[in-house]
Amino acid sequence: MQNFQFLSSTKIIFGKETEKKVGSECKKHSSKVLLHYGGGSIKKTGLYETICLSLQEAGIEYIELSGVQPNPRLSLVKEGIKICRENAIDFILAVGGGSVIDSAKAISTGTPYEGDVWDFFEGKAVPENVLKVGVVLTIPAAGSEASKSCVITNEDGWYKRGLNVEINRPVFAIMNPELTYTLPPYQTASGAADIMAHIMERYFTNVSNVDLTDRLCEGALQTVIKNTPMVMENPENYDARAEIMWASTLAHNDLLGVGRIGDWSSHQIEHELSGIYDVAHGAGLAVILPAWMKYIYKQRIERFAQFAVRVWNVGYDFETPERTALEGIKRLEDFFKGIGLPTTLKGLNIPDDRLEEMAQKCKKTNGDKLGFFVPLSTEDIFNILKLAK
Amino acid sequence: MQNFQFLSSTKIIFGKETEKKVGSECKKHSSKVLLHYGGGSIKKTGLYETICLSLQEAGIEYIELSGVQPNPRLSLVKEGIKICRENAIDFILAVGGGSVIDSAKAISTGTPYEGDVWDFFEGKAVPENVLKVGVVLTIPAAGSEASKSCVITNEDGWYKRGLNVEINRPVFAIMNPELTYTLPPYQTASGAADIMAHIMERYFTNVSNVDLTDRLCEGALQTVIKNTPMVMENPENYDARAEIMWASTLAHNDLLGVGRIGDWSSHQIEHELSGIYDVAHGAGLAVILPAWMKYIYKQRIERFAQFAVRVWNVGYDFETPERTALEGIKRLEDFFKGIGLPTTLKGLNIPDDRLEEMAQKCKKTNGDKLGFFVPLSTEDIFNILKLAK
Repeated sequence: MQNFQFLSSTKIIFGKETEKKVGSECKKHSSKVLLHYGGGSIKKTGLYETICLSLQEAGIEYIELSGVQPNPRLSLVKEGIKICRENAIDFILAVGGGSVIDSAKAISTGTPYEGDVWDFFEGKAVPENVLKVGVVLTIPAAGSEASKSCVITNEDGWYKRGLNVEINRPVFAIMNPELTYTLPPYQTASGAADIMAHIMERYFTNVSNVDLTDRLCEGALQTVIKNTPMVMENPENYDARAEIMWASTLAHNDLLGVGRIGDWSSHQIEHELSGIYDVAHGAGLAVILPAWMKYIYKQRIERFAQFAVRVWNVGYDFETPERTALEGIKRLEDFFKGIGLPTTLKGLNIPDDRLEEMAQKCKKTNGDKLGFFVPLSTEDIFNILKLAK
Repeated sequence: MQNFQFLSSTKIIFGKETEKKVGSECKKHSSKVLLHYGGGSIKKTGLYETICLSLQEAGIEYIELSGVQPNPRLSLVKEGIKICRENAIDFILAVGGGSVIDSAKAISTGTPYEGDVWDFFEGKAVPENVLKVGVVLTIPAAGSEASKSCVITNEDGWYKRGLNVEINRPVFAIMNPELTYTLPPYQTASGAADIMAHIMERYFTNVSNVDLTDRLCEGALQTVIKNTPMVMENPENYDARAEIMWASTLAHNDLLGVGRIGDWSSHQIEHELSGIYDVAHGAGLAVILPAWMKYIYKQRIERFAQFAVRVWNVGYDFETPERTALEGIKRLEDFFKGIGLPTTLKGLNIPDDRLEEMAQKCKKTNGDKLGFFVPLSTEDIFNILKLAK
């Protein structure tokens, strides 16, 4: 186990009707907030009205900025920064999923910064001050509600880049599983894939003696594997929705990653897909992850066997452990198919004419940092993309 | 799953040589601290010198209060309160295990309070302001380094009582597994029992649909079960010490208890033992827990079967699930014996002439709150104590 520091400083407020507390929670931090959200879905469900009423009752002035798209865009972030500056806003309330939260985080880092907010995403500067961010979560997937991550897409070149800093963690996250009842099946499934990816990319590590985090990862994966088909069958299964929602947070607040180094190759490769083709991040991961596994598993058969036995209840093949390892990968792929996700680029309607360009772009961005479990060259990335065709 | 709020606000600084950071961490909060510890062990190991040097280098003035005993006493707490008040101290640095940390927490709640600090432990008042507490952990067991718990023994009647308030959580916990190399085997084993008790008392719940926390509990238990015999065999096994140390924190910061209601009967009954006979808390639990299980398992056979199958890898007996349940309890008892713990009152050198008195005292303190998984009457407690003879 490696040395680590850990503090997930987001206050979790979880359960039925908790969204009604949003006004009083905001009031602890601010009296003037930017209410940030996506399209019309929160208006259709009535959540928008509940939030506005709660803010008004708490005596909070708010200015709205809607229009966040999946794979949130830099242009809207810049608009948000302008609004916050002009109106002396010191708190951002994100109502939505990972895209809205990430957009809010980017606005929060950019507002007090004199330069271009994209500097942070290119590693040219590190944010020192941020506006506080609060969350009402409607999509369990990205785990952004309690994570230090933030991913933004720059339309100028379609670069999708991340920023990971402790200062990014929201101060509170209100999580009512009922708010996820209206998620379309495809989005529910994509969310599950994203959650599982966050866990697996921590799980596949070369750091030895990480028993506890291994076990926690395996337990979280088993929970998602059990409960996702249940919500696909009955979208209003509160308890199953709750399990998935809580798993989404723990999958990415880094509890499951302490003392070990993960391998985020699949996430980085997927960023090239969704950067160019604007596919759902989780669906892209369901394509890339199994391809990545098939390409590299031979270098770490014992870990893939552990994954198969402990997560998928595969019987260990003592004579040919490789069979166990392969069966685990197959079960993962079958699981994704079973919840309606594509597992090939073709299934995502992505043609194969830009694979080399994506591989080069991915390598250029990540350099030697791509792959800790198994390091990847440009050719490796290209091969993985070909395997995913 | 039930509604919950969760924020474990303690910053964890984990790994080799982390104790050298204590000065700079304290400095973020204070320039004048109470250095609180137990007996001479931290002087023997050299930890005392490291801490003092680090505090001095950070320009921190400190006043010492040593002498904390296992089952920490109210009289020393009152002495600490007096020192803090007279010297305008605003931060307490606890160097030790649960007893030292709990003593520090009690001093921190009592210092700004005009009344008697024992009021908090009798439920007559709730602390509103506290001094901040930081920790350098030397014993993985109580989980007090990141919990809201604090247990103090009042020598006037030998009452051992707890106080659970969010405001009690330390601001940081420095955890270097190397600092636990010198723990005597009996104390290591008692610590493991305490950790396992914290997990099991959350695990045995009547709240249904708690998949994720069930899995996390099971994983944490399996980690302690695997690694404790390894440190009994080789006390300087860093990785095994690290697993146990990190498990001790997660076992009691309430991550494993969110959305469910635990059953703390065994802890409460044990408090009567260690209040009167001053036995190691974990050793007392190793006696009470199996007796409690044997007494109540028939009312929840399916949960004890799950415990047996998932934690102890017992094969499920489809014809007679009760056998599975009993085998799990037996494995727990065997495990305690295997690491050198007593599993009977006799083994703890506790005579059987005051069992009734303890049962009455326990019931009087806890009233109807004793037992959520299975509620316990005074007679039930008495029967459990008799089973433990």
